Amino acid sequence: MMIKAPYLLYLGSTADPMAIKTSRGIAMFRPEDAIGEFVREGGALSLGLPQMGFAEAAAAGARTLILGIANAGGTLSDELIDDCEAALDANLDIASGLHSRLRDEPRLVAAAKRNGRRLFDVRDVGSDLRVGNGLPRAGRRMLTVGTDCSVGKMVTTLHLERAMRARGIAADFRATGQTGILIAGSGVPLDAVIADFISGAIEQLSPAREDGGWDLIEGQGSLFHPSFAGVSTGLLHGAQPDAIVICHDPTRPHMRGLPHYPLPSLADTIEANLRVGRLTNPDVIAVGIALNTSSLEREEALALCRRTAEETGLPATDPVAFGVEEIIDRMEECFGESLQSNLRSA
Amino acid sequence: MMIKAPYLLYLGSTADPMAIKTSRGIAMFRPEDAIGEFVREGGALSLGLPQMGFAEAAAAGARTLILGIANAGGTLSDELIDDCEAALDANLDIASGLHSRLRDEPRLVAAAKRNGRRLFDVRDVGSDLRVGNGLPRAGRRMLTVGTDCSVGKMVTTLHLERAMRARGIAADFRATGQTGILIAGSGVPLDAVIADFISGAIEQLSPAREDGGWDLIEGQGSLFHPSFAGVSTGLLHGAQPDAIVICHDPTRPHMRGLPHYPLPSLADTIEANLRVGRLTNPDVIAVGIALNTSSLEREEALALCRRTAEETGLPATDPVAFGVEEIIDRMEECFGESLQSNLRSA
Repeated sequence: MMIKAPYLLYLGSTADPMAIKTSRGIAMFRPEDAIGEFVREGGALSLGLPQMGFAEAAAAGARTLILGIANAGGTLSDELIDDCEAALDANLDIASGLHSRLRDEPRLVAAAKRNGRRLFDVRDVGSDLRVGNGLPRAGRRMLTVGTDCSVGKMVTTLHLERAMRARGIAADFRATGQTGILIAGSGVPLDAVIADFISGAIEQLSPAREDGGWDLIEGQGSLFHPSFAGVSTGLLHGAQPDAIVICHDPTRPHMRGLPHYPLPSLADTIEANLRVGRLTNPDVIAVGIALNTSSLEREEALALCRRTAEETGLPATDPVAFGVEEIIDRMEECFGESLQSNLRSA
Repeated sequence: MMIKAPYLLYLGSTADPMAIKTSRGIAMFRPEDAIGEFVREGGALSLGLPQMGFAEAAAAGARTLILGIANAGGTLSDELIDDCEAALDANLDIASGLHSRLRDEPRLVAAAKRNGRRLFDVRDVGSDLRVGNGLPRAGRRMLTVGTDCSVGKMVTTLHLERAMRARGIAADFRATGQTGILIAGSGVPLDAVIADFISGAIEQLSPAREDGGWDLIEGQGSLFHPSFAGVSTGLLHGAQPDAIVICHDPTRPHMRGLPHYPLPSLADTIEANLRVGRLTNPDVIAVGIALNTSSLEREEALALCRRTAEETGLPATDPVAFGVEEIIDRMEECFGESLQSNLRSA
């Protein structure tokens, strides 16, 4: 990735906290690069960063405006195009993870040209993708899966990376979404990949690995989400995970964006992912549950984690509130030799 | 579709009968438009059409060379580009269902221009795709599914259309692959759709239908094929089928292209498709098995159909050899009112 830091994070005017997932992820996992946030008049959300206009951010050293927002379909609104043009005129590059491409918007192409600025469409996929082959490959892989979209798969994966590295285990986050790619500096924007290449793209993202370390692959969607289950299926097959961690938001009233679809149970989610995953890795196991308890009181959250652990027989935690040590402990129990070999070589 | 008939069908030099599935489908279901076949020196396959060179075909009235071939990844070989250039110079248009686009090959663009010919990339997807919503919609839908890729899903669907129409039932083939699109004149090239839009593309291909008739949706891939199960999953969710017909090649030694993957059983295939399909249509049922018995003796084939019917409790037939009447009978039993209303209005 050639996207230049520091960043100004675009929050726009949305009132949906999940719509700014990308900006929040960057602020959390790359705080040194996030020097400010841009909030439109009437916008209700903040990441606690200094609020700046475009010229102000440029003066403070920002190089790139990150469109850290998500919306179904990923189109560019007129409001957004106006803001991007103003940012380019203030001498900022723009990086976007939306489906609609900056480069397809003539006003932005013109504004970039007249200011000598660059447009980065993070969802652009390389042209060297292959069809997946399902062949067993060396190395250990963990994949986060979920009961739904936007339940913490990226955050859980990043927390696992941080905590495994702290134990001296070789572990690398493999990004499959725009935020993850902006954080990791590379990855595959999976939901922009052509359908025939979903599993092959993941085989390329996480190839055979001989150092005994782990690839920690960011999951997408859910096998139970009628809009995106195809993506989740191909991702699971391509990842060939040895271990899955199931992510869940216990307060979610229904599948994201679909009031007519209830959430699946954790038991059904574990069972379905193991069943589908066994096609390419017959030995796949579940090693933990990651709960997003951000809207619960601490005692309530701890009780829920305990209850979930009892019900599933798996370590259950909120990675943000309580860390992921128990899940890594379980991975050490189940894959001890692999983890030990890393400890020795660390 | 503005592709002009009659066609010259390109077989090239391949020795793999399944690689010319597209050409064979056109010869079978649009015989009036297939006036000849082009076979390279050393090519071992034939569809029984008159073999012609490009100039000869043009003189016989052909308007378009159809690249009726398939290969993993769908690239254009140098050999193929040479042939296409010669066909353009002989005043034929070219239509292709391969992933690699004719329009991205400068030699072909130049040859088309100098001859006033056109290049059709059948896999090009419209820009108006939506994310699927999984909402129940009116109308009856049948989807063909399979134990593997290339086991007769398109052919079975086309035979069902023909036989249902012969009974006076409103029924329309909905194409999801390049051959089907060339036959139907419209459709969605599903394996070229961006991953996020798989189920949504099928919701658009087969929208709510109020006339009591059936949409017969061409299946793709297999839930058990590690390269393409994501496509099959999204297709199944988007189709919301009331009925599925399971297609199978009893002589297939392993999953297509993957010697390390055995075929699933019919029972597992039925069970998996019903389980995944229930997410968007809880009432989905299986109504028949379509076996490709082309390499068996007639008595052997009939015995296999009988045995398969006993084992699965479903009508089992080879659509090409024995027709699909039993499957439509079963559909009448299970969805009688709907079929009857069509008979009355027919």
